[in-house]
Amino acid sequence: MSKELTSRAENYSEWYNDLVLKSGLADYSAVRGCMVIKPYGFALWENMRDVLDKMFKDTGHQNAYFPLFVPKSLFEAEEKNAEGFAKECAVVTHYRLKNDPSKPGKLMVDPEAKLEEELVVRPTSEAIIWNTYKDWIKSYRDLPLLINQWANVVRWEMRTRLFLRTTEFLWQEGHTAHSTKQEAVEETERMLEVYATFAEEYMALPVIRGVKTPAERFAGAEDTYCIEAMMQDGKALQAGTSHFLGQNFAKAFDVKYLSKENKQEYVWATSWGVSTRLIGALVMAHSDDNGLVLPPRIAPIQVVIVPIYKGDEQKAQIDEKVIALMQDLKAAGISVKYDDNDNNRPGWKFAEYELKGVPVRVAIGARDLQNGVAEVARRDTKEKTSVALENLAEHIKDLLVQIQENLYNRALNFREEHTTQVDGWEEFEKVLDTKAGFVSAHWDGTAETEEAIKEKTKATIRCIPLNNLQEEGKCILTGKPSSQRVLFARAY
Amino acid sequence: MSKELTSRAENYSEWYNDLVLKSGLADYSAVRGCMVIKPYGFALWENMRDVLDKMFKDTGHQNAYFPLFVPKSLFEAEEKNAEGFAKECAVVTHYRLKNDPSKPGKLMVDPEAKLEEELVVRPTSEAIIWNTYKDWIKSYRDLPLLINQWANVVRWEMRTRLFLRTTEFLWQEGHTAHSTKQEAVEETERMLEVYATFAEEYMALPVIRGVKTPAERFAGAEDTYCIEAMMQDGKALQAGTSHFLGQNFAKAFDVKYLSKENKQEYVWATSWGVSTRLIGALVMAHSDDNGLVLPPRIAPIQVVIVPIYKGDEQKAQIDEKVIALMQDLKAAGISVKYDDNDNNRPGWKFAEYELKGVPVRVAIGARDLQNGVAEVARRDTKEKTSVALENLAEHIKDLLVQIQENLYNRALNFREEHTTQVDGWEEFEKVLDTKAGFVSAHWDGTAETEEAIKEKTKATIRCIPLNNLQEEGKCILTGKPSSQRVLFARAY
Repeated sequence: MSKELTSRAENYSEWYNDLVLKSGLADYSAVRGCMVIKPYGFALWENMRDVLDKMFKDTGHQNAYFPLFVPKSLFEAEEKNAEGFAKECAVVTHYRLKNDPSKPGKLMVDPEAKLEEELVVRPTSEAIIWNTYKDWIKSYRDLPLLINQWANVVRWEMRTRLFLRTTEFLWQEGHTAHSTKQEAVEETERMLEVYATFAEEYMALPVIRGVKTPAERFAGAEDTYCIEAMMQDGKALQAGTSHFLGQNFAKAFDVKYLSKENKQEYVWATSWGVSTRLIGALVMAHSDDNGLVLPPRIAPIQVVIVPIYKGDEQKAQIDEKVIALMQDLKAAGISVKYDDNDNNRPGWKFAEYELKGVPVRVAIGARDLQNGVAEVARRDTKEKTSVALENLAEHIKDLLVQIQENLYNRALNFREEHTTQVDGWEEFEKVLDTKAGFVSAHWDGTAETEEAIKEKTKATIRCIPLNNLQEEGKCILTGKPSSQRVLFARAY
Repeated sequence: MSKELTSRAENYSEWYNDLVLKSGLADYSAVRGCMVIKPYGFALWENMRDVLDKMFKDTGHQNAYFPLFVPKSLFEAEEKNAEGFAKECAVVTHYRLKNDPSKPGKLMVDPEAKLEEELVVRPTSEAIIWNTYKDWIKSYRDLPLLINQWANVVRWEMRTRLFLRTTEFLWQEGHTAHSTKQEAVEETERMLEVYATFAEEYMALPVIRGVKTPAERFAGAEDTYCIEAMMQDGKALQAGTSHFLGQNFAKAFDVKYLSKENKQEYVWATSWGVSTRLIGALVMAHSDDNGLVLPPRIAPIQVVIVPIYKGDEQKAQIDEKVIALMQDLKAAGISVKYDDNDNNRPGWKFAEYELKGVPVRVAIGARDLQNGVAEVARRDTKEKTSVALENLAEHIKDLLVQIQENLYNRALNFREEHTTQVDGWEEFEKVLDTKAGFVSAHWDGTAETEEAIKEKTKATIRCIPLNNLQEEGKCILTGKPSSQRVLFARAY
């Protein structure tokens, strides 16, 4: 397969697919809509997961694991949730295969092994978890219950995209139970902030914190908070959601606790999740026509060192310097790779690590050694500098911090340039078609208008930003009075 | 639920279930044969997983992720493997639910959403992975391919036991591809040794390294290596397996590589796995009638500190000492919990942490403070010692090492006491019925005899130990000539 990428200008969507495949993040599989996460992509996911996991634990959560399958009768208990997911459920109906008598060597589903009750492969785990919480929660002393699960989930999507929308995906889902509404709302907001912090500080991805409109809420939630990011093609991407579930699941599964006042009360709930979709966001936010551009704080390889030499003697001299440098970098917790594989030429390696988005590349040649320098290239700006060997480790450490900041600022500038305040319908359509990005506009607050705008333009209300400015205005479509602007965009 | 456990002598099997449930490791679920892994059990699994994951990476493996579903046509491609698992497969046949017209508010499987090809929920991933490797392996330069996956798998078991045998379980499965048979065999043996090292050094669980008889091999393997452990009731437990798969999967999925000699050759394969079953082994190997006994190196909480005081002033004095002690222990990487929850009395806490198997308990009272000492109790022997506060941190660090060693030695002694060399049939049956444990005996090497012994006694050949002594003897059942002893036992 050629390593040449389609350019973003040529075809943004093909560029994305090309990049994911050729950089070694993921591959298609034999299962419709499911992908294989390749080692490089999985190493990236592990880094993201480890940071998030620590943030969850630091905010008092514990991990647990609940079954993959949800019996149909439990699945349908919370009606709104069930209705929201029913159309995309993979369903297990049988528990055995047998030899196909008509086709030697082939198997068939054994009709005698039909399940009495079908099992839904979890599209999300509220039902199975709240059915369990019923046994775990008896008194106010059992609350709050703060649990997270790392798991695979399945949603039968008709149109899939690598990472962005796959039939099976990996995610984490937090499910918490509280004795008061206020505490549950605070938890919902706390976890939204955890996601926002992770996106901004680790993924270098600026996000808008907001609340979804009722039409865009998670099925079964009273309120859905979200973080929304902007991709390089001006489309928005929902990067994480945190739901205040009210007492909906507590009532559906009859989960009550004995309060300090000795009363039986329904429990308040939240759930929140981010998924491997974040990798799609990461790719689309920062990368360029030469390949991935990964933020240093989550890059699987932060620094790659390429030797340039002729003969064993030169190689030995370079090795000596490199080994010392690597020790220094590793001691600082930096992930570094020395690629001295002599099957590939330096030029090939440069292109390969550009494709893979390694933030810093160091090239050391024999002449550099004589001059006491090395060439340091940063992936984000492609700048190359000659750096004295004695300062190299410190220089690299600083550079990683600079690259992280630069990526964030670049993405933030892009988003600001692609956020437009609009007051009239014609301008609204024009901005969406020509400039794209977020459009901040007044909306009359009705689901009908929201739907009509979506039908006319394919733009949806991404969110009502938190702490939104309250101002009088007129709905861009209906002209009816509005008290605040909301953010519209076409979205992934 | 009472915290009283059934004793081992009374009913070993009930003791095990009681202990798993009451210590907070796991719970039953609404899904037949599936369990919920509770936070304490999952923290234990995370510790085990993290150690293993590092061992896999240190031996050159990378993690990746492959789809949960295996299309039936791929599943049946390697016939022996398919035959081995066909009877325990959960099968997805539909991808949508719809409202049940006859039952308002209820859902039913939508008959119009029937899959053209059924999807098997992976019972193991050789098929889906080797179908992918076909695209990844072209030349000898692509080999070896050393990949591991942490995943959930489903095997429809008729009789299930918490951790030991559940319909869904968590595991890791390594799948490697090699250019030569020798290299693949070496990999199989290397990973067996990784498992054995993990079991012995971290789980404090001595294991026999061996090879399975053909009848006990993994379906589709040329050779299955295993580690076998001994439980306190004298039954054996297979704790991990490593398979040399020959070229079976390469041939089934047509995976060839271009050799250095420019020839197309089939690839050689291995696979190897351990699962949450290890937690069952851990519980049954070390625990006692008062609760879990966890080896310090993988215990979620290594040290618990309980204050004993009256009034805020005493509490403040104790807090001061404890905070300093905790800093010291945490700096040494020790996981420590200070339980100063005043809802529970010290006696209740002592019992609770005994139940949870925390290796070291420190109690500090007001009078202790005056005397400059604390009471240190070790979970394994239940010994209590008064230790001077200034030596406390060092004492605890040493004690954790001692406990780890003691658990291993205790289990090793138990196994040695419960390994019996037997030369006659009557004695064979008697030992199995009265003393249990491993029985080392001659076997004529035929599957018929193996099966006959199993039918008569329920004992199976656990393994032929590696580097087994070669000696002439007579099969205990048939009297036919035999060249070596093998290990029999009744097993989980």
